[in-house]
Amino acid sequence: MRKMVLSILVENTSGVLSRVSGLFSRRGYNIDSLTVGETQNPKYSRMTVVATGDEQILEQIRNQLNKLEDIKEITELIDGASVCRELVLIKVAADQKQRQAIISIADVFRSKIVDVAPESIMIEITGNPAKINAFIRLLEGYQILELVRTGVTGLARGSGDIGPYIDF
Amino acid sequence: MRKMVLSILVENTSGVLSRVSGLFSRRGYNIDSLTVGETQNPKYSRMTVVATGDEQILEQIRNQLNKLEDIKEITELIDGASVCRELVLIKVAADQKQRQAIISIADVFRSKIVDVAPESIMIEITGNPAKINAFIRLLEGYQILELVRTGVTGLARGSGDIGPYIDF
Repeated sequence: MRKMVLSILVENTSGVLSRVSGLFSRRGYNIDSLTVGETQNPKYSRMTVVATGDEQILEQIRNQLNKLEDIKEITELIDGASVCRELVLIKVAADQKQRQAIISIADVFRSKIVDVAPESIMIEITGNPAKINAFIRLLEGYQILELVRTGVTGLARGSGDIGPYIDF
Repeated sequence: MRKMVLSILVENTSGVLSRVSGLFSRRGYNIDSLTVGETQNPKYSRMTVVATGDEQILEQIRNQLNKLEDIKEITELIDGASVCRELVLIKVAADQKQRQAIISIADVFRSKIVDVAPESIMIEITGNPAKINAFIRLLEGYQILELVRTGVTGLARGSGDIGPYIDF
């Protein structure tokens, strides 16, 4: 079992998303997360797919993806040689008493308060999945009302050899 | 023609993503962006789909989505009453001379430098789509090497009536 993060450059056609996701689901594979958005060239979009599973089956899926006509390029994003980030919005129940404690946790993680209401507070946090999971665990002491994650997106570092030693 | 942002709570099954995207593509509809990730309850995921098109067809798609068994809830995220955010990673060509100018633009937009290499610099920016598009337009004076967007994700504000007057 391993986790694979694939960055897939696709043509911006109406069926490409369902063709890619169909390849995974026909094998009973649940995609951990998927993001897709336009690149600097509106003819192309870039998908980032995270899937966990048997090495051999993941390789088969990757080979089949390569055969799809509207897929232009597939790169695997390797830990250390790439930057992977996720954006999460979390709405937490918070009355006047709890508000300050939650804002303090948010500050430590350099996250942003994006909405405050009389009974709730909404936080935006970005980071690698490990940081985000740690943040969510801390908030579990409070009542999480809603939580939405974009899923992971990423790019290869400019220079793979110096990347792993820097933590921006 | 209008733009619709749908927040869809789904069961975490292997086929749900291809069923949802298939509903759009069978009508020749291109999804502008789609993000999907787990919620606080691992049994459910939340998808955020942005689609632009004819009001009537979008309504039909929404009704058909409602009939899918693994879809638990569909909410439309309305501007002002919701917080919509996107995360973008941009790799820009930058030698020693250009680096400082690019870092200054990044500072103005409160974005983060996440990688520096001898010939490139990578920036992480989050915000609403309008802010992100303005940032990308500014960087077009430089050479954008790679750009990846998560697509829009969002949550309804805690209190719809005060939201529009606050800009966090």
